[in-house]
Amino acid sequence: MGHSGTEEERIRRLSALLGAVASGVVLGIGDDAAVLQPPAGKRLVWTVDTQVEEVHFRRGWLAGGQDIGYRAFMAAASDIAAMGAAPWCALSALELPPDVDDAMLDAIAAGQRAASDQIGAAIVGGNLSRGPVLAITTTLLGSVAEAVTRSGARAGDGIWLAGPVGLAAAGLAALSRDVLDARLGLALAAWRRPVARIEDGRALAGVAHAAIDVSDGLARDLGHLAAASGVRAVLDEALLLAHAGEPLARAAEALGMAALDLALFGGEDYALVAASATALPGFTRVGEVHEGSGLGLLSREGERDLAARGFDHFARKT
Amino acid sequence: MGHSGTEEERIRRLSALLGAVASGVVLGIGDDAAVLQPPAGKRLVWTVDTQVEEVHFRRGWLAGGQDIGYRAFMAAASDIAAMGAAPWCALSALELPPDVDDAMLDAIAAGQRAASDQIGAAIVGGNLSRGPVLAITTTLLGSVAEAVTRSGARAGDGIWLAGPVGLAAAGLAALSRDVLDARLGLALAAWRRPVARIEDGRALAGVAHAAIDVSDGLARDLGHLAAASGVRAVLDEALLLAHAGEPLARAAEALGMAALDLALFGGEDYALVAASATALPGFTRVGEVHEGSGLGLLSREGERDLAARGFDHFARKT
Repeated sequence: MGHSGTEEERIRRLSALLGAVASGVVLGIGDDAAVLQPPAGKRLVWTVDTQVEEVHFRRGWLAGGQDIGYRAFMAAASDIAAMGAAPWCALSALELPPDVDDAMLDAIAAGQRAASDQIGAAIVGGNLSRGPVLAITTTLLGSVAEAVTRSGARAGDGIWLAGPVGLAAAGLAALSRDVLDARLGLALAAWRRPVARIEDGRALAGVAHAAIDVSDGLARDLGHLAAASGVRAVLDEALLLAHAGEPLARAAEALGMAALDLALFGGEDYALVAASATALPGFTRVGEVHEGSGLGLLSREGERDLAARGFDHFARKT
Repeated sequence: MGHSGTEEERIRRLSALLGAVASGVVLGIGDDAAVLQPPAGKRLVWTVDTQVEEVHFRRGWLAGGQDIGYRAFMAAASDIAAMGAAPWCALSALELPPDVDDAMLDAIAAGQRAASDQIGAAIVGGNLSRGPVLAITTTLLGSVAEAVTRSGARAGDGIWLAGPVGLAAAGLAALSRDVLDARLGLALAAWRRPVARIEDGRALAGVAHAAIDVSDGLARDLGHLAAASGVRAVLDEALLLAHAGEPLARAAEALGMAALDLALFGGEDYALVAASATALPGFTRVGEVHEGSGLGLLSREGERDLAARGFDHFARKT
């Protein structure tokens, strides 16, 4: 396919597409490093995430580079949401194989820019490299007065959930099995265009005792929160399925899968799950924190142990 | 080869190897994001760099994972040095192919830790992903009262250089051509174990008008500085060769290459080049800033234009 020029030209293209103005950004794209004036009286939260072609996505499963860029950015931003922080700025490191031409690169950058604009984080720099497959590493800084961590859950807290669970995994299953069904529309959108739940995350700060984002599946990620907090997390099957609702039920039906399995073990919706003694606006109560350890699932038959198994990326087994 | 367990176990291994204490780090490895208390009265500088196997290095050319981890970390840290900043903390995102076993992963982490300890930057988090080849993305934050950028050079400034130029490129040439010669020992070390010039960078802050690190070759990187500053940079051939000295002369001789070509176009030594009206401790004067644009080279025959061509990574042509 080829592209039109040097690395410098590609960096200029990207600068024009990505560069945005944000508070506290003294110097953005184009020097050895970005220069930032951190907000007074705040702590910073800082994360990095990589999305690799054939591991986290296949190009044919996304509607072009825009989805790829958007999805990669939101996956990283979800970690900022889980800390209760406000996104501030970001760097983007791209590994580009030879078949990513300028049009594809522009589309990826447009997707990153759409996501960064949506959550209010300016892209202030990055890195370009060649690589055997397309990979996008996004690092994000956010700010918060007091971060919400995984480790503060206490017995008696409710378990609160914001956002879909299982829906993205249903979308991924539909794509990998090549299932076409109108009942899967929302599931496909959930996998292709996940949205970091920044507003819901902001509602956690100063209120929730602990939180985590659901990237690898509710059971696995809530298991991390329970382990870090030294407590047992017990999910209520009926409350969880009610929260997941019709969209998941219809997608599961189309795939011949159990909605509960998708809700418990499906990742990449980037829902937020939190432990809180009080109700959290935008969240649904789906369980309770107990003394002990591990995970439980409460149903009509009583409480059973839930293995903290999680979502396996489609290529993990290859 | 295989490795012993789950992603969680690998993260625990890495946490034990990488985790360090640093001022202002409220929460390090193990949550959704690191939590930092930024230093008062300082600006932050922020960079990201990726080193990809078969693009930036070949495993056989390095003495194991330690060199790989060390080299990747120092390449990123050099950007912090070029801004005149003090390193603060870092995140490491690894893409691991199936043949990276636990011993190799430990060696990579040990190399990253050695580099981060050497420059005083704590690794406070990261990301693990699978990938088709080994790739290491490092993002670093540093702090400085007033950052040195590329764009402040003025006519009349001296051009000042700290650290070797051309030596790492000679080492790379020796490895790629399989040349064994005692005269190449320093060149091999320069490529395998480059050191970010943090102390030299600190000497720039508040003094130099502009600076950049030499990652892609002196001509190319100084060309970036000249273009950003709207000036012409003129290197003095005799001063430059005197600075490069015997180590480069001997390596060039062993390779049958011109020392001047290596000094002008060889990258990855991570030297620092700065424009300053006054002498910079630790730096050698190798040229002068003029009005105009582009790059010049002054020799006995007078001044000629220098193409801003730079170092091509060995795999760039494949």
